Parts: sequence; C-alpha cells; structure tokens
Amino acid sequence: MSSDSSDSQAMVMKYLGWHGPATFFRRPFVELKDASKIDIGLVGVPFASGNPVARTTFLAPRAIRDISMGMVRVHRQFRINPFEICRMADLGDTPVPHLFDHVKTIADIAAYFRALHAKGIVPFSFGGDHTIPAPILRGIAGPGSGRKGPVGMIHVDAHTDTAGDVLGADDHCASFMFQLVKDGIVDPKRVVQIGLNGHLGAAEQEDWAKSVGMRLITKDEFDEIGLEAAVKEVRRVVGKGETYLTFDIDSLEGIYVPATGVPELGGFTPKEAVGIVRGCRGLNLIGGDMVCFHPLLGDTRMTAFYTASIAYEILTLLAERIKSRS
Amino acid sequence: MSSDSSDSQAMVMKYLGWHGPATFFRRPFVELKDASKIDIGLVGVPFASGNPVARTTFLAPRAIRDISMGMVRVHRQFRINPFEICRMADLGDTPVPHLFDHVKTIADIAAYFRALHAKGIVPFSFGGDHTIPAPILRGIAGPGSGRKGPVGMIHVDAHTDTAGDVLGADDHCASFMFQLVKDGIVDPKRVVQIGLNGHLGAAEQEDWAKSVGMRLITKDEFDEIGLEAAVKEVRRVVGKGETYLTFDIDSLEGIYVPATGVPELGGFTPKEAVGIVRGCRGLNLIGGDMVCFHPLLGDTRMTAFYTASIAYEILTLLAERIKSRS
Amino acid sequence: MSSDSSDSQAMVMKYLGWHGPATFFRRPFVELKDASKIDIGLVGVPFASGNPVARTTFLAPRAIRDISMGMVRVHRQFRINPFEICRMADLGDTPVPHLFDHVKTIADIAAYFRALHAKGIVPFSFGGDHTIPAPILRGIAGPGSGRKGPVGMIHVDAHTDTAGDVLGADDHCASFMFQLVKDGIVDPKRVVQIGLNGHLGAAEQEDWAKSVGMRLITKDEFDEIGLEAAVKEVRRVVGKGETYLTFDIDSLEGIYVPATGVPELGGFTPKEAVGIVRGCRGLNLIGGDMVCFHPLLGDTRMTAFYTASIAYEILTLLAERIKSRS
Amino acid sequence: MSSDSSDSQAMVMKYLGWHGPATFFRRPFVELKDASKIDIGLVGVPFASGNPVARTTFLAPRAIRDISMGMVRVHRQFRINPFEICRMADLGDTPVPHLFDHVKTIADIAAYFRALHAKGIVPFSFGGDHTIPAPILRGIAGPGSGRKGPVGMIHVDAHTDTAGDVLGADDHCASFMFQLVKDGIVDPKRVVQIGLNGHLGAAEQEDWAKSVGMRLITKDEFDEIGLEAAVKEVRRVVGKGETYLTFDIDSLEGIYVPATGVPELGGFTPKEAVGIVRGCRGLNLIGGDMVCFHPLLGDTRMTAFYTASIAYEILTLLAERIKSRS
Amino acid sequence: MSSDSSDSQAMVMKYLGWHGPATFFRRPFVELKDASKIDIGLVGVPFASGNPVARTTFLAPRAIRDISMGMVRVHRQFRINPFEICRMADLGDTPVPHLFDHVKTIADIAAYFRALHAKGIVPFSFGGDHTIPAPILRGIAGPGSGRKGPVGMIHVDAHTDTAGDVLGADDHCASFMFQLVKDGIVDPKRVVQIGLNGHLGAAEQEDWAKSVGMRLITKDEFDEIGLEAAVKEVRRVVGKGETYLTFDIDSLEGIYVPATGVPELGGFTPKEAVGIVRGCRGLNLIGGDMVCFHPLLGDTRMTAFYTASIAYEILTLLAERIKSRS
Amino acid sequence: MSSDSSDSQAMVMKYLGWHGPATFFRRPFVELKDASKIDIGLVGVPFASGNPVARTTFLAPRAIRDISMGMVRVHRQFRINPFEICRMADLGDTPVPHLFDHVKTIADIAAYFRALHAKGIVPFSFGGDHTIPAPILRGIAGPGSGRKGPVGMIHVDAHTDTAGDVLGADDHCASFMFQLVKDGIVDPKRVVQIGLNGHLGAAEQEDWAKSVGMRLITKDEFDEIGLEAAVKEVRRVVGKGETYLTFDIDSLEGIYVPATGVPELGGFTPKEAVGIVRGCRGLNLIGGDMVCFHPLLGDTRMTAFYTASIAYEILTLLAERIKSRS
Repeated sequence: MSSDSSDSQAMVMKYLGWHGPATFFRRPFVELKDASKIDIGLVGVPFASGNPVARTTFLAPRAIRDISMGMVRVHRQFRINPFEICRMADLGDTPVPHLFDHVKTIADIAAYFRALHAKGIVPFSFGGDHTIPAPILRGIAGPGSGRKGPVGMIHVDAHTDTAGDVLGADDHCASFMFQLVKDGIVDPKRVVQIGLNGHLGAAEQEDWAKSVGMRLITKDEFDEIGLEAAVKEVRRVVGKGETYLTFDIDSLEGIYVPATGVPELGGFTPKEAVGIVRGCRGLNLIGGDMVCFHPLLGDTRMTAFYTASIAYEILTLLAERIKSRS
Repeated sequence: MSSDSSDSQAMVMKYLGWHGPATFFRRPFVELKDASKIDIGLVGVPFASGNPVARTTFLAPRAIRDISMGMVRVHRQFRINPFEICRMADLGDTPVPHLFDHVKTIADIAAYFRALHAKGIVPFSFGGDHTIPAPILRGIAGPGSGRKGPVGMIHVDAHTDTAGDVLGADDHCASFMFQLVKDGIVDPKRVVQIGLNGHLGAAEQEDWAKSVGMRLITKDEFDEIGLEAAVKEVRRVVGKGETYLTFDIDSLEGIYVPATGVPELGGFTPKEAVGIVRGCRGLNLIGGDMVCFHPLLGDTRMTAFYTASIAYEILTLLAERIKSRS
Repeated sequence: MSSDSSDSQAMVMKYLGWHGPATFFRRPFVELKDASKIDIGLVGVPFASGNPVARTTFLAPRAIRDISMGMVRVHRQFRINPFEICRMADLGDTPVPHLFDHVKTIADIAAYFRALHAKGIVPFSFGGDHTIPAPILRGIAGPGSGRKGPVGMIHVDAHTDTAGDVLGADDHCASFMFQLVKDGIVDPKRVVQIGLNGHLGAAEQEDWAKSVGMRLITKDEFDEIGLEAAVKEVRRVVGKGETYLTFDIDSLEGIYVPATGVPELGGFTPKEAVGIVRGCRGLNLIGGDMVCFHPLLGDTRMTAFYTASIAYEILTLLAERIKSRS
Repeated sequence: MSSDSSDSQAMVMKYLGWHGPATFFRRPFVELKDASKIDIGLVGVPFASGNPVARTTFLAPRAIRDISMGMVRVHRQFRINPFEICRMADLGDTPVPHLFDHVKTIADIAAYFRALHAKGIVPFSFGGDHTIPAPILRGIAGPGSGRKGPVGMIHVDAHTDTAGDVLGADDHCASFMFQLVKDGIVDPKRVVQIGLNGHLGAAEQEDWAKSVGMRLITKDEFDEIGLEAAVKEVRRVVGKGETYLTFDIDSLEGIYVPATGVPELGGFTPKEAVGIVRGCRGLNLIGGDMVCFHPLLGDTRMTAFYTASIAYEILTLLAERIKSRS
Repeated sequence: MSSDSSDSQAMVMKYLGWHGPATFFRRPFVELKDASKIDIGLVGVPFASGNPVARTTFLAPRAIRDISMGMVRVHRQFRINPFEICRMADLGDTPVPHLFDHVKTIADIAAYFRALHAKGIVPFSFGGDHTIPAPILRGIAGPGSGRKGPVGMIHVDAHTDTAGDVLGADDHCASFMFQLVKDGIVDPKRVVQIGLNGHLGAAEQEDWAKSVGMRLITKDEFDEIGLEAAVKEVRRVVGKGETYLTFDIDSLEGIYVPATGVPELGGFTPKEAVGIVRGCRGLNLIGGDMVCFHPLLGDTRMTAFYTASIAYEILTLLAERIKSRS
Repeated sequence: MSSDSSDSQAMVMKYLGWHGPATFFRRPFVELKDASKIDIGLVGVPFASGNPVARTTFLAPRAIRDISMGMVRVHRQFRINPFEICRMADLGDTPVPHLFDHVKTIADIAAYFRALHAKGIVPFSFGGDHTIPAPILRGIAGPGSGRKGPVGMIHVDAHTDTAGDVLGADDHCASFMFQLVKDGIVDPKRVVQIGLNGHLGAAEQEDWAKSVGMRLITKDEFDEIGLEAAVKEVRRVVGKGETYLTFDIDSLEGIYVPATGVPELGGFTPKEAVGIVRGCRGLNLIGGDMVCFHPLLGDTRMTAFYTASIAYEILTLLAERIKSRS
C-alpha cells in the first residue's frame, strides 16, 4: 500500500486542495476558442451589475475555484466520479469587455454561450447573480440554437424572479424568469419553482408566475409535503423534455450562505437542497448554474463550501446524463 | 409595467437596503419630545452595563437599523404590511446621560418609557441586554401607568433570568424577571418562559420561578411536545389579559446568533422561533423587545439579520393588535 | 462643573458616537427637495458601477456616516468648529433610479447636483468612486450653472484618471479628468494632480495630462521637495479662481486605507494628506469630495476613520470659505 | 440572598468567563511532573503536522481554554457538576521538543501519555487533529499499560481514517484507526464508527474497516434509523469492556464548525452530537478527545463553543465513571 | 550545539508563543493573597465601564497575555532580559465583585492596589481604559501609602483626560488626571503630557491642565522639536522624584492600534513611542500601565502586539530600576 | 481612442485583477516537466513545517497569485514592463509528496530546484517560510550546479536566521543561513543582512554571523546612516559576483504585514523596503524569493499586496539582468 510510486504520489497530492493554481474542480484551464473535445464547460460568470443589493459576485468564481480544488471525489451515494466519466474543462470567466454597459454585457454573455453551445459543450456556470440564466439560455436555447422548442426549468430559489423592468433595465436579478418566458425560450408549463420563501413585495410576481402556468412549491408547502413528494412533483412538471437547472443559494436558510445578498429565514437545510438535486437524477438536463454568491458580505469560505458542494451534485447529474447518451 | 414614474421610482428605491441614512425599518426619525400621532415607537436601548459577559449591545441598535432597511415588506403568511396598517416611528435611542451610574441609568430608561406610554405609544425596543425589560415595564406598566393590575409576560429565552443581586446590582441581565415579580408589575401566574436550555448554575432560579407560579417550557419539553402544543400552552397561560413579549436571541441555537453573549447548544431554529411568535397572533400585546444582541462578538450581519427578521414578526402582531382596536 | 443641566447633558451625549441614527457628522437629515437655508450639503453618492476592480462603494456613505458621528469637534489647529460657523445638512444619498443603466445614472447624478447648485448649496460628497466628480461638476459648474468659465481642480490621487473610454463607457473611475477637460468644465491649466504613484499602464495618460497643461506632482517629486513646497505649488497653479477639491483615498499609503480598490505602495501618510488639505486654506473652493472607499475589501472601520478625518479637514475649509463671504 | 460575602463573590466571579488567565474549565494548571491526586487530566495536544489540509490546530488548546472558562456548570439533564465529583487539572500542552520531526513527535506524545497513565490519570485531550489518538492510545493502552487486551472505540467522525501511509508518514490524520488495529491496541470488533459522511476517495478504506469487523454507522443510516436506535447499536458494539471515545468535530454539519479542515455537508446537528455522547452514559470509558479544530480557518469562537460544549458532555461521562468506581 | 538536553529543550519550547496556558510574559500565575517575594506584579484590570465609546477592554488582559508569551527576550538595545533581573508574577485580573456599581468598582480596584503596594510590589497594569490610573495611584500613592508627597507622572496620550464629571461619574476615562490632581496624589508641576493630538472639545481641558502647571507637549510640538528634545523635556519636568508612567495606546497613529476606542490621525509611529519610553531610562519609576486597548473594535492581534511590545519596554525600565535599588 | 478592437479589449480586461483563474502575475501555468524557453520560473513553495510559530504558509502562493493578477504593469521609475522583456511562467507549487517527513520534503524541494536550474530557468519563489532558501540554493548553486564557487546573498530580514538545530531539525526557518554557510554554498564574506531588528534570544546568532564575516546592517544602523548609504554598503559587500536575494517580509514594520509569524516593531516602511531592492539594480542576481507570509494570521489581502508589490520589484531586476545577458 505504499504511496511512493509516481502515480500514487499524484493521487495523494490531489487531496491537497490548496496546492497549485486553482481551477474549477482541478479541471484543465482552456479558453473557449481553444476548446475541443469537451463535454462540460465550467464557466465563471463574473457579472454583478444585475443585483442592486450587493455587487461582489465578480469575486465568486475565484472563491469557488479555490474551495472546489479539494472536492474531486467519488459520489458517496451514486458511486460515480463525475470527473472521470466525461470530459470537463475550466473555461475561465466570460469576457466582459463592456462591463459598464449593462445591456451590451448581457448580450456579450449570450454570445459567449452561443459559441460554447455551437461547440457541443454543456455549460455549468458559477458566480453571477440571477441575471445570468437569461443570457445563458438565450445562448444555448434561443433562436439559432437548434432546439426544437422552449425548454423546461427547475428553479430552486427563495424568490420567483418574475419582476418587470427595474432601475432602468429589463434584465436583472429579479426578472430573468419573466424575460425567458416573454422571449419564448422557456415553456412556463414546464417550469417548477421550489423554495419560495421571501417577502411579498413580490406577491404579484407570484400571481403572474402561476397565471402563465408555472408550478410554485413554496418553502411552506415543501415543509408540509416533504422532500419525497416535492421531488416527485418536480419530476412530473418538467417531464422528459430538455430542462435547465438554476440554483439560487439564497434558497438555503440564511446562516449557511451568509455571503448572499438577500438571505431569508426558514430556507432549506443543505441536506434538503442536496436531496432536491439528487431527486432530479435521470432528467434530461442541458445545463445548470449556481448563482447569487456574493463574497465578502459574510463568511466567504463557508458560502463557497456549500455552493461548490451543491455544484458537485449538479455536475454529477450532468456527467451521468452525458455518459448515458454516448 | 414601467417603473419610471416618480411613485414607482420611490417604490423601487426602497428595496435598496443600503440607500440613505438608516432608521428602523425606514420609519421616520422623530425624537420622543416631538412625537405625536405615533402608534408604535421603535426605540433603541443602548444599555449594555447589565451584562458582565459582553458589553457591546450599545452597538446593536444601529446594526439592526442597518439591516432592517431592506425588510420593509408584506408578511408572506399574513398578507399584511405592518408598516401600512399603523403609524410607526424610529424614536432614536433612549438617552443615557448617567451612563456610568447603573442605578440612575435604569431609572432614566424607566422615565423615558413612562413618558412614551403617556403619549399613548406602544413600545418595541431593540438592543440592550435582558436588564432592560425591567425599566421598560416599570415605565409602561408600573405605578402611575393606569394599568388595572400586573401584566402577563411571554418570555422567550434560554435562561430564566430570576437571579437576585449580582456584582453589586439588583437590576441586571439575569434578574429582570425576579425584579418585575417582586415589584408586582408582572403576574407570575401569567408568565410563560419558553426555550430554557442553559446551564444549571441557575437550577435554584428555575425552582423559584416555578414556586411563584410561572410556567416553564424548557427546550427539552418543547422538542418533546412540538411547536403546536407549545404555542397552545403559551396562549393558555397568558390568556386574554395584557401581555408583554420579550425575546432573548440566545434562545436560538448558537450558530444563528454568534454575536450574543451566552450562546447555548440546542436552541430553537429560526423557523421554530418564528413559529412561536406567530403562534401569539391575536393576543393582547402591549409591547415587546429583542435583546442580547452583542455586535462584534461574532458575525454581526447575520445576527442582525435574524434579530430584525424576528422583530418584523413581533411588529406585525403589534400592528395587527393596534389596528384591531381602532 | 456639573453636567446635569439639560444643555450640558446634550453636550455630553454628542460624544457617544454610536448613539442614535447616524447622519453625516450629526447634521440633520433633509431631502434635497425640502432643503432650504443650507450652506453645505453633505451628499452620499452610492455609485459603484464605475470601478471594475471593486464595486462596494455603495456601502461607503453609511460607513462614513457611522464613524463621523464621533467627530463633531473644534479643529485643533484652526480653533474653528466648522459645524457652527455655517449651516450643513445630510441630504441623504443621491437617488439612483436607473442604477443598472450606467449612462442614465451618471445623468441622474448630474441632474441632482444641478438642482442642489440651483438652491445655492455647496456640495461635499462621500462615497462613490472617481467616476462621480464628472457628473458633480457638470451639475455645479457645467452649462447653465452660471459660472463665468471653467474651474480649477485640486486632484489628490495616486492615479491621473485621464483614460478614454473603457469597458463600454466614456465616464468611469479612470476617465473623469479627461472628460471634464474635454467638456470644457475644467481648465487644465488650473489643474494640479498630486500624489501620482500608481503603475504606468497609465504612462500615456500622464503624457496627455501634461500636454494639455496640467501640473503633475508625483509622489516621488513630493518626497523630494517636501510638503511646504508642494503646497506652495498647488496654490500657485489654482490661484484665486473657483476651484474644486477631489480626494481619492488611494493616494494614501495602502495600509491606511485597506478598503480601497487599487491600493498603492508608497503613498501619503495621513499627516501628509492632512497637510496638503490644510495647505489649501483660503482658496476659493466651490465643493469637494472623498472617493474610492470600498467597504468590505479591508478594514472598513479604519478606512472610514481616515476618510472621515480628512473629510472633516475639507469641510473646515469649505465652512471658512462660506463664512468669509457672508 | 446577598452576594457580598467572600464566598458568594467568588461564586459570581466564576461566571465572568473572561476573567483571569485561562485554563481548561477553570481547573488548576499543574505540569504532569508535579501532578498528584488527579483523576482526570485535561491535556492540550498542539500537534498539527498530521493534517495536510490545514495546520492551525496548534492554536486550538488555547482557544478552547478561553471559551471553556464560562462553562463550569451543573449538567442540566444529569444534575451533576462534573468538576465537583472528581479531581481535574489542566496539565498544559504536551511538550513537542522535536516538533519538526514527525515520527519523533508522535513518539514524544505517546511517551507523555504513558507517563500520565502511570500516574493513574484518565486523559481527556483537546486540540490536535486525528493523528493524535494513535499515540494517546499507545500511551494508555499499549504494551506496558497493564491493560488486559485491546480496547473498544467509539469513533464519531465524518471519515473512517483507515488509510495507509500518505505523504511520507504512517501516522497521520487519516490513518489512526488503521494503525491502532494494526498495532493490536484496538479490537476492531469493538469499534463503532458513527457519522460517516465524507467523500469516497475513501471507499476502499470503508471496505477495509468492515472487513476487519468494525461497525460503520454512516450518517445516511443514522438519518434512517434515528438517534435512539443508533445509540443502542453503539452500546451493543462496545459492550461493557474498556472503551475510548474520540470525537472529530467534522462529524457535525459544516456550518457549526467552520474552523475545521475538511467540513462536510449533511453532518450532525449539535443536538444530535450531544445525544450520541449522552447515549454513552455508563459505558466503561477510559479516556476521550475532541480533535480537528483548526482555529483561523473560520469563526474560531463558534467552533470553540461547540467543541468545548461537547467536551463538557464527555467530561461529565468520564467524571461519573470515575466516581462510580470510587 | 544540540538542543536535545532537557534544559535546552525547555529553552526552545519557550519560543512557541502558543504553547500552554497563557500568562503575562510567561510569568507564574500567583493570586495576590498568595504572593510573596515578588518585585513586579503584572495585573490585568478588566474594567471597561469608564469608556462610553467602547466597552470591550475587559477582553484586553487575556489578549495581551496571549501575544506576550512569544516576547520573553533580551532587550536588543539595553542587552538586558528584564525577566531575569527581577522577580515578576502574573497576579491575574483585579477582582470586580461589584462590576455593575461604577463607584464601588473603582474603590475595589484602589483597595486591590493598596494591598499590592503593602506587599512591596511594584505594579504594571494591562487592560482597562484611562479610568484606572486614578484608583491605581490612590492605592499605591494615596493616603496611607507611606509616600512622602504627591508623585510625578509621565502621561503619553492623544488626550489630556482632565475633564470633570461626565455621564454621572467623577471617575472615568477622560478625568483621571483631573481627579488625581484634585486628590493631591499627583503633583501637576511634575506632570508631563506628551502626544496630545485629539480634538478640542477638550480645549478648555488643556487650558486647565496648563493653568495648574502641567507641561503639555502636543504631537505638533513633538514633530517640530523632535524625539531627542522631547525626551529631554520629559526628564526635566519629572526630575528625580517618584514618577508613574501611564501609556494610552491611542497616542499612536490610528492604524497601529485599530482596536482602540478613540483613534486619532497623526499620532506617534511605534518607533517614536518606544523612543519616548526608552528616553525615560533611569528615572525613578514606581509603576506603569498600558490602557485603552479595546479588543474586537479592530485587528486584535496587531493591537495586542504593539501594546505588549511597548509594555515590554516599560517593564525593562521598571526591572532595571528595581535591580539598581537592590 | 476606442477600445473596441479585439486587441484593446484584451488590454483592458487584464486590469480586471479578479478575472479568470489566477496565476502569478498572469503568466501562463506550465508544469516544470513541460517547461521550455522559460527565463524566469515563478514557483510557489507551500512548505510551512519549518516555522513553529505559524504554519499557514501553504496558503500563501495562492493568495499572492490572486493579488498579483492586478499588478501586470510598467515600472514607474524604470519604465520597464518586466513581463515583456523576458519569458516568465507560473510553474505551480513545488510538489510535496512527503509533506509529513520534514527531511525528505526539504530534499524534494532541493531536487525540484536542481531540475529547474538544469533547464536554465532562474527561480523566483513565493510562499514558504525562511526554511526554503536552503533547499533552493542547494538546488541551483550546490554541488553539480555548475557554479564556480559559493554565491553571495542579500538577506533582508528582521532576524539573522543563523541558529543551529531546533525542535528536532537542522533545516528550519531560523537556520537557513547557518546551513548554507556550513554547506559551503554561500560565501559569508559576500553576505549582507539588512534590517535586523528582532529580539536577542539570537544575540549569539548575530555574533556567529559576524565571526564568519557577514556584514550585518541592523535596522538601528539603517535609521542612522540612511537608505543611500545602506544601499551602497549592500553593493560593496556582494560586489559583482553571483548573488541571491531573499526577502523576509517580517523586516517590514509589523502593521504592513500582519499575516506574518513574528512581526517586529520598528521595521522598514514599504517605501524603504522598495528602496533597498531598487538599490540592487544591476547586480548579478541569480534568483530570489519572498518568504514568511502566513495567511490567516492577519489581514491576508494587505499582506499579499505588500508581498506581491515588493516581488514585482525583484522580478524587474531579474528580468533586466536576464535581458542584459541576451
């Protein structure tokens, strides 16, 4: 059982999470233009302008890269090492050459994901607030993407994010779902929002969401019906069609994610959150993201820890999905 | 749905919790001497001498003001905006012109609340440790207050606070309940203490509390009988009479309120704490407070977040109560 | 020498910097629309989009309000209490109803200062990065302001801020001086930049600044010629005409202002910085600001302390100037 | 009820957790060489080299001493003051005169505990990572200790710690259990590991553990069968024989112990952890430890709080055990 | 040069500042009642009520103990090991059995130091704010102390501390010098205050100080005349008589002591501060203190570092003084 | 002056220090085995075992990578962009496959640098404590390196680091200079130590250093003779021969580098430190390092800022040197 051969040395070194330059889950860093033979692209989206509450998400990708270095592992329950069953790369952060121009930057992000999709890469994004699924999905599921129709959405969040224009912008952290339905990119009847728990400045936003056919599972309902029933309902709503999974960390009880902009009291425990993700096993997932991590607002290391831990679960599902198709 | 009219602009700006000078829940700042037509007075009590463990509560009112700016909202479950159904003001912090004289300062605080009560204002206090309900109740329910008799008390806390004189003072953070019973201001048979969980240096304190007729629901009993039964018992004990609600944040599991002086292992989850407060809906509440937030001892933002979130729930009950009488 | 009369009580309470809701230097909070008989308006500018490095300046106004509460005092060297010799108010933060639209927000800020100037108020601004002097001066010295011509500028900074368009915007933290010269609002021959110490990605920016006639005193030159000579040169350049003073805290040695976005090694000591400001006594100042305080990036309390301490010095000059005219 | 006599003064002062030099739970500081008539020795083990992830455990003993000063109390449920029913002393930290020599240091620690055992002292150790139970048990239960045979072990942990040699050492934080079985000091059939929850780089480690007869209760199994059944199983496995209890704080849900090296998602709540310890009441315990507290990696005060709180529970069991024998 | 003998081991271990329970500079902990054959008593004074700005000094003694453990050393310039040339002990913290009674607590502290003086011990105190030299000197130099007359004072501070009664107390952090002169314990003509730099709410306080004959060296004057001349003046004023040295850490430039209550801009560099202390070599010192360290308000470790480093210098002078008499 | 072309976009993006995975100064990451055509190798040495005071240096390389991303710039005084005049790469961190074996790890590091030297790469190392120059120089200047004889050394430090074996090891943070002289790798007559300022537990160490011919410039001497004379002396001692530059950050005044293990009072200002490095321009440098940055012990960002800023200066010298040879 000696670890002194060169191979086993490498094996041991990889548990030293602090060793070497950090990339997402130790995957090789490749810029999108050079990427080939990549199944899943891990992308940092350092776009923070969309959230008027707190604007430090631009620091999130690096914080997640850092903690993820110690998380390259076999999944305890699924007995899969997601990093071995498909090819992943850290594609760096999306360029933001017009960072001061909100509208152009959102278009830049969409263009980036359009190019990524054109290379056959499935995206998993880190960092950014809830503005970003709009340009991501415009890129990978909008006109010209080759999809046959609108996609479904599993939206884990304390807030419904169906506001209209606010503070001078259509696209922002509280409107992405409204925009994607309006754009015809997401099919509201195949949308499930789970974890709704925030205040009701947004009462009319929830009414609108229901009126267009979305299924809303509030945190109160979740507590009543339990994890198993909730997961069943998620699966029923999105069915077998193409589905995107977006996870807002503020759906967790505030203390687990102090470095988020709008923490809420009464959210998911980490184990419940993981239970929801695992419940999506086998669904037809086309991508995912973890959003609303705002470093510096609170304990950055612990928030990164939970963010990366849940990301690992989503990555496992994506990897399984890709492997099952090949 | 444009937000560009002046009114809707104002509506949107109010979600920017960091915008402008901070007052409690964005209520106007009015000094007590100038206050009129106020239903509920939000008062900071920056009195920290009472706690020998940690003396930074004088920083608490401002920390709570800060976080509360982003919490002006409709109550999700009750569908009420407490700030619209009655008139509230931020009355600033109680003056403490004899801050170095423990006994005089407690008398100053009592005098302040006597004047506030004389103006027909219902108090809700933030900051301070558990010394402060004694002078508050002397002010609003003591001799000369016009009350018909002693009042009831819902006391959420990990500790029973029925010690005698300590460290040279009768009034301190661990004695307020003893003092109020001794003073005849609180009727021990209408006192319920819930969440008792701390160590038993205080064993004889609990014995005394029971001996005078208080109902003690320890955290262990709560875990056994559950929230619903506990709430029922709270309501039975205090009945329909006038009742004051005092909430010590150390009744929560320690991790949620790191910036408290005597954290305990095994306390309420935030959701349980909120459940207890909501369970008091409709009771005849005459005031309330949130105490024992000691900024700097731990994560100030998260402790303020939970403190203000629970305060919001109590304020909703007070607002409903006032509205129901008008 | 008893302090027990009501007046002396108030006098003592004002040293308790943590007491009551915080406004800038304890001045009354008045919204601009309600302001009258105000000489100096203290304005928070919570505009952070302009700085791609760090975007937390929106938290700066409140942090400065907090620390400034303990700084209402007589100037040790000048024997003046600036708060007594003219009327100041805290005007809150500039509204940012189009916060996600960079160009509109800059126009909104300009409009705000135009209205403030129309009321005869001299502005002193806190918070924000170095984007903001451009809209401020457009508001108080641009077309329609009634000024006879372009104004002078004392610009204390580690960087020259004369870049062109960057990241999709003309106005940003590194371009304000370029814009103001281009707009004809500032007379480059009456501009002195002092403290230049940053890297030379900006070499051509400094060349441009010199080419249009500005006087650049680098930190290296300052160390050579000393404070006295430097101050003399500042006074020579701006002369007797109307002059605005903008102070970027990154001109200080990094350790004093850890919560800034682009700290530099080798900057001013706080005493040198104060020496420069005091050296401007008697100049014809029409306003001023302290910029580039980014809370959370480092020790917020100490950075606020130095920022507010230097602001106090500038306010003293503005107050003297106003008094001398009346 | 006056507290002014000298005795009651002393009683009150002891609640001031911050008063005086800190020792573990206010016990007198005695160096081992001078120790006599001590039942339980409280020992700091500042040995951190064993953990490649984080090496700040050398700061742990002092952090625990600090917080423990406010925890000298009667056990709420057991109505016992562990510090009164037997004689405890703070023996300081184990000397580490060869700190840079991993192998020698481990031998030094073993020698220290051998000497301690020879004096009839039962050890409870704080600080250090999971390397340390190996030398501790070599000292108190190895050859020459006078024990009749291998001992049992209750091992609360998220990880199984049965790795072989790693990074050039046999003894390290992930191998102690493997070493102790190999050394014949622990009887694998009387080992129960509870709380296993970490990743499965260690899959083969768990297989090995089962193959030699250990009982593994994963956190998933615990959640399924519940506390009561789990405790029953623990008692069944270790039976009436001599048993050591080692507690790795990373068995708790990460947020409760941010200052640990390998936090895991989904661990015990503090109340569950305490429940497991209390469930061991009456067992034949010969010592215990709390390991893997790495100050500075996260909130040191809260991690120390939970570590010392659980330590208090184990100490109560040890004290009862000793008293029952006398 | 092997370090393996038992003696050299002990020598090396003492550089591990984090090893073992912490006492001031590793001196043995002896309670005053048990103290004998002690030359210098190191006393923690955890009395914080005196400062209305910040009340966390009660945490200061332990923070200083902690950092001082790594500072047991030979003085580089004087080539003396102060801990070897006389007998020092850590006497713990002064008891504060009436902590909530300001007046009684001050009397308790005075009584403590009276008892200490009666044992022939020279005190050096840590922690507390500037309230404490009043009771200390009442104890060691007041009526009954056996001194022939009032003593001299070297008072290093940014503030003159000659206020009258404030906030309901005569003795507080801003009045100690006024009280000691009024009490006739200090001879104002042998008082030198150095470093005055704070605001002039205190203008009349400085006038009073001068009017009774104290010598005030403001920080501005110090900068003008330089260290050498300043030290000469200090020595001239206090002369050969008995003199006490009190050092307020807020005399340092704010950034060096972030954890103080009233930081000032423009104070001493640490090297200047040390220069002043060293300049007092050979004076007839009867005791000293370091005050106004308020842990938690800022970087506790660095403030403790500078506080303990300067304390080391004062201790060296005291030790030399004692040795020279024996 | 539009920035919209692809090239100028890239130029602007590089100022966003937080963008993308972090490498040292944005240089490409290449593992040593794949390195070719590299002039300077930037190497992280995450070896912390050598310092018994604080063992968090393993976190240093990543912290420096992070901050250095915003420092790719033209040198203000020298008008050189060091990253353009020669080829640099981030070689990652040295492998530490025997991390728990002190002696083997030091040998591993030496072997790494031997291989690096064999490829003609000049090393600049970050992270690690002062143990590391010993193995680095054994690698690049020891037997088999092809050097003609022992090299010179510029050693900027508060401590002389000439101790013998300590805590069971010959090589450690306080002995590297002793070892290198003993090994015959460094010529003591061409060694200059500058900044000596620490305590004199090390008095005999300094005596030894002088006895073998080193030139010691204490901080006291530096303050007396000034920067210019000091630099002249440095140049005189090392002359034209091959010289290595090692920089211990604890030579700076403590406040600038709070995250170091043994801060000292009275060290260099950052500007003095930079002045010393710049004074070495044109010397025959063969490599360099920055050591003793211990993240977490204090403000990590500011310590990294100063560490990387000074590293930039050394890199500029190395780059010039290499260019001058080609």
